[in-house]
Amino acid sequence: MNERIPVGVLGATGMVGQEFVSFLRDHPWFDLTWLGASDRSAGKRYREATTWRLGGAIPAYVADIVVSECKPGDGVPKLLFSAMDAGVATDIERAMAGAGHTVVSNSRNHRMEDDVPLLVPEINPDHLRLVREQRRKRGWSGQIVTNPNCSTIVMVMALAPLKQFGIRKIIVTTMQAISGAGYPGVASMDINANVIPYIGMEEEKMQSETQKILGDFATTKIQPLAAAVSASCNRVPVVDGHTMAVSVELEKKATEAEILGAILGFRGIPQQKGLPSAPPCPVIYMEEPDRPQPRRDVERENGMAVFVGRLRKCPVLDYKFIAMGHNTVRGAAGAAVLNAELMQAEGLL
Amino acid sequence: MNERIPVGVLGATGMVGQEFVSFLRDHPWFDLTWLGASDRSAGKRYREATTWRLGGAIPAYVADIVVSECKPGDGVPKLLFSAMDAGVATDIERAMAGAGHTVVSNSRNHRMEDDVPLLVPEINPDHLRLVREQRRKRGWSGQIVTNPNCSTIVMVMALAPLKQFGIRKIIVTTMQAISGAGYPGVASMDINANVIPYIGMEEEKMQSETQKILGDFATTKIQPLAAAVSASCNRVPVVDGHTMAVSVELEKKATEAEILGAILGFRGIPQQKGLPSAPPCPVIYMEEPDRPQPRRDVERENGMAVFVGRLRKCPVLDYKFIAMGHNTVRGAAGAAVLNAELMQAEGLL
Amino acid sequence: MNERIPVGVLGATGMVGQEFVSFLRDHPWFDLTWLGASDRSAGKRYREATTWRLGGAIPAYVADIVVSECKPGDGVPKLLFSAMDAGVATDIERAMAGAGHTVVSNSRNHRMEDDVPLLVPEINPDHLRLVREQRRKRGWSGQIVTNPNCSTIVMVMALAPLKQFGIRKIIVTTMQAISGAGYPGVASMDINANVIPYIGMEEEKMQSETQKILGDFATTKIQPLAAAVSASCNRVPVVDGHTMAVSVELEKKATEAEILGAILGFRGIPQQKGLPSAPPCPVIYMEEPDRPQPRRDVERENGMAVFVGRLRKCPVLDYKFIAMGHNTVRGAAGAAVLNAELMQAEGLL
Amino acid sequence: MNERIPVGVLGATGMVGQEFVSFLRDHPWFDLTWLGASDRSAGKRYREATTWRLGGAIPAYVADIVVSECKPGDGVPKLLFSAMDAGVATDIERAMAGAGHTVVSNSRNHRMEDDVPLLVPEINPDHLRLVREQRRKRGWSGQIVTNPNCSTIVMVMALAPLKQFGIRKIIVTTMQAISGAGYPGVASMDINANVIPYIGMEEEKMQSETQKILGDFATTKIQPLAAAVSASCNRVPVVDGHTMAVSVELEKKATEAEILGAILGFRGIPQQKGLPSAPPCPVIYMEEPDRPQPRRDVERENGMAVFVGRLRKCPVLDYKFIAMGHNTVRGAAGAAVLNAELMQAEGLL
Repeated sequence: MNERIPVGVLGATGMVGQEFVSFLRDHPWFDLTWLGASDRSAGKRYREATTWRLGGAIPAYVADIVVSECKPGDGVPKLLFSAMDAGVATDIERAMAGAGHTVVSNSRNHRMEDDVPLLVPEINPDHLRLVREQRRKRGWSGQIVTNPNCSTIVMVMALAPLKQFGIRKIIVTTMQAISGAGYPGVASMDINANVIPYIGMEEEKMQSETQKILGDFATTKIQPLAAAVSASCNRVPVVDGHTMAVSVELEKKATEAEILGAILGFRGIPQQKGLPSAPPCPVIYMEEPDRPQPRRDVERENGMAVFVGRLRKCPVLDYKFIAMGHNTVRGAAGAAVLNAELMQAEGLL
Repeated sequence: MNERIPVGVLGATGMVGQEFVSFLRDHPWFDLTWLGASDRSAGKRYREATTWRLGGAIPAYVADIVVSECKPGDGVPKLLFSAMDAGVATDIERAMAGAGHTVVSNSRNHRMEDDVPLLVPEINPDHLRLVREQRRKRGWSGQIVTNPNCSTIVMVMALAPLKQFGIRKIIVTTMQAISGAGYPGVASMDINANVIPYIGMEEEKMQSETQKILGDFATTKIQPLAAAVSASCNRVPVVDGHTMAVSVELEKKATEAEILGAILGFRGIPQQKGLPSAPPCPVIYMEEPDRPQPRRDVERENGMAVFVGRLRKCPVLDYKFIAMGHNTVRGAAGAAVLNAELMQAEGLL
Repeated sequence: MNERIPVGVLGATGMVGQEFVSFLRDHPWFDLTWLGASDRSAGKRYREATTWRLGGAIPAYVADIVVSECKPGDGVPKLLFSAMDAGVATDIERAMAGAGHTVVSNSRNHRMEDDVPLLVPEINPDHLRLVREQRRKRGWSGQIVTNPNCSTIVMVMALAPLKQFGIRKIIVTTMQAISGAGYPGVASMDINANVIPYIGMEEEKMQSETQKILGDFATTKIQPLAAAVSASCNRVPVVDGHTMAVSVELEKKATEAEILGAILGFRGIPQQKGLPSAPPCPVIYMEEPDRPQPRRDVERENGMAVFVGRLRKCPVLDYKFIAMGHNTVRGAAGAAVLNAELMQAEGLL
Repeated sequence: MNERIPVGVLGATGMVGQEFVSFLRDHPWFDLTWLGASDRSAGKRYREATTWRLGGAIPAYVADIVVSECKPGDGVPKLLFSAMDAGVATDIERAMAGAGHTVVSNSRNHRMEDDVPLLVPEINPDHLRLVREQRRKRGWSGQIVTNPNCSTIVMVMALAPLKQFGIRKIIVTTMQAISGAGYPGVASMDINANVIPYIGMEEEKMQSETQKILGDFATTKIQPLAAAVSASCNRVPVVDGHTMAVSVELEKKATEAEILGAILGFRGIPQQKGLPSAPPCPVIYMEEPDRPQPRRDVERENGMAVFVGRLRKCPVLDYKFIAMGHNTVRGAAGAAVLNAELMQAEGLL
């Protein structure tokens, strides 16, 4: 690829938008040249429109880009990443897709629609075929593709290697990082030295999204995985990295060695094709008895792998283990960029 | 009761020992007059032998007591609370029981022995009948009674109201406070802004202790509850208060209203007899969607109640909920003192 | 005193308002019977109008009081504590004072006005004489009395015993708790495992308020203390308790023993008169080399004392030490209540 | 430079040793091939001898090196970095220097000796001339060079640009990260949601080391800077990065613009020579009102720059500002490696 593809970010000044800006720096295929935000920010330089919340300084490569309004028009790149708040994402994403743009969205708004792929490139690349139906039904020249919620993706990455054994039941308890709530997000008075045993709508998302992601493409729609999923979602005082304890019941008897072998051997299309943001090994098993840990492991593999540890028998279901992944990278910006890379590799951009 | 009963603490200078010292201040029945510790401390005043780790200053009422060695002898009170490390507890507790002392122990050493009650006064006061067998078999004039591990007790208190429906399966994930590991305990480099998904032997304790506590006394021994228990134990950066997400499967169909009614109506002997350390309501249900929380709720009810919230259907087992309790009060010193109060009320001291 | 005096709280639903509600529970002199808040809350029961942010449950004694609007009228008690946001406090407090109410305010709005006492009962009870001038000039039948900012008061309490030696220069660096910023206050993404070396307008307040509080009443106004004050204010991830390192230069030579003696012997009118909220000893010196510490010491003395430790020579100025106090008790609600107690004892209500 | 220089680390299994291992990975000049530790570890592979405490996994390039004892002998590289505990460093470092090794030490043992450079390459490269005297007096064929304590270096880097104005008085209050105490270091029960206003011997080190580092080389010894230094050292719950509030009095009048210009223009020999670990700009001034912050800024510039912000007038001394730097990189391993780079560039290895 000689020339990089120009791309834009919808909702570029918010926290997820900043994560896209950070993740796309020096991307070998995509050249971030367009930043969309609300009316309030439009017309200002990015450095003026944005209070940079991530570590370090605002990246120089975008600092002087003049922010645009989020509507179709001249100069808007064909490929758009959406980091918009759920409150405004539906209309703008649809308008953009209708106007011929490919919207690779991190927003939750379209995830559960029948004709929208909820894509994890290592797991369900064939779900991209939904797009044909999406265009047909909606009369769009563009398309919308989504990635999962930040807690869902950590779990489904860890579970994907076990799909071959037939996943029947899942019980998961999460311990989620504060960055998952955006900015200002969780008040320090609520979470300092505390646990908040509730995250609005998170348990529902983990349940329904998991069934869709691990489901099978059948002609024009996804047949959800017929597995019962029970989630308890908690916030803990960790900056980045969602940790979760997962118990799973399988249809086929499998030894612990077979389970471990499936995890260790798990690779997907992104690894085969060497997509730029793909980790060499998407699920990394840690042998230490007390790992993975969010603060110590979350930055490894550029935040794109999911870490699993403590695989052992579950006295109630079959097996249990710990999974941990970077909620704002693999769980947001990085997930969307990998989706776009897959689409590019598949000739779908 | 006109005269208070003199009592002692074995292992008084350690962190659990300090919790006993703190909890027994102004106790209406028990008068803490004797403090036992290692050779290194014996002979010093308590204030000199101890680096006080709890909040505030060392309590004045014990500050000038001269620390004794932990062995039977003149002046050792008949009733002893044991806060000893597991490494030394076995021999000393046995020697004391053999010499006629009642040892009410927080140590794990004797908990799972067949003839030792693992006592929770609201749940299994009849397990005290094991003591007869204990004395007979061991030829002791004294006795040993134990309380559960700090994470076990929070869960069993929350589950006890459901025992009537037949508990078949339990899956629990804990988020445990650092005070549960004593002092110096968990290194700040390990837990600051982090989760440690492992606590040595904690999962095994939660599994076996739960079955014993919720089991039935049968002639001379306990018939453990025939329920499968699966625990995943995690450390989180919280000072006091173990929080846990529990899913449970029951034998009898029960509506959510019946479950909630059982929790709300749960009372035990300590409440009926008005034992001094008994909370009026041992299990408190919180209606708020994001409660209980350790930092905000752990100090309520003098640390002696367990708080439950978020009762709801579990898509895999039957019901799930959050439980939280004070690990160093109801989970340690307070539990032992309540055990001794029950024994006193039952004429067993 | 046979009958308790009815009192009200302006801004009762906010975080400082909740602290008043919490602090006034079981007050021997004052009976909290009236709660004022914004239009949005007026007419609702307090339990419905308020999301309780403090530990435990909303106090039962106020839960069913119907919230009123913050304006003069029938049934508004003569004595009002003000917990209002600075944005609205000026007009409402003046209206109330004009209508004959005594407004004992924690808001910053009137603190630095020439005719308003910035009162710390142990330090400058004579500043109450400003009220005569205030009433005369403003034509009010009521009055406004204020307490200092939460970081100022910790420092001035620690410095007050040294005033006798002539305070010439003060350099202070604070490490302030998150509760000082109210709710939602500091975002957890900003403060988790972090230090924020800036608190808006805090350094200016510490400088000017200190000079006024430690100044002398002269006929009709306060002659500010002619001391240079330099403050660096930082936020740290602590829940309650502002800690600060203070260096001070004195006019008169004083030995370390004289300084310590002055601290140990410091008492004020509240102690002499035994005001209900007065700590027996307002400034407590801790001998341990690593104390005071906010998490371990902040709850002592009902949050009303200031703790000092590590008194030692300063190689640049004369002496340096650590001070720590409860920012939402002695630094807010408790300070105001003690002010009202002093006024009651002096016959000024 | 075609061939890399073989180097070793004394005390390689401890936390500072791990930081050297981590920092030297892919170093362009130095090839870490030898790891020394205690008898207990000697003979084992590094991966077996070490519990890796830093983020991520143990670096592969050293994992299989067999650990040696810390004594002179065949195969010990000429250049040794010392990460040894103070308890054992004196004798071993001297033995190595006596046997012809260059010991570039992070230990405190030799820092304040008259003939040992306390080196900061940007500030006092001429102090290396002390080595001649050191060798002569001690009869060593090797040499010992040291770097400052982790809090000292952050302050002196920030102050070095002001040396030209004559530094007369310094008052500093630190807020230091837990990683500065090594492993296990600070107990979580002590620091979680807390401030510890004391770090043993830290204030003394900041005072004496600062005077030596900013002092002048005069014939055969260092003439310490004649400035009064007053430090108050505190531990806060931050993982990496020491933050400090500094007030300074200068001999020459200087405008704020002159001070700022001096900071912005500050460069040293490492920058001129382009030493591999030298940050392009050793002191970075941040314009934002609430920066630098440890969690957000500590990883910038590979941890080798010091960040300064909030420069403003001090009402007591002349100016005050905030400084922050990475205590385990610029304050330990990185400092020592930069020292060795300077020595290599000067032909002193």
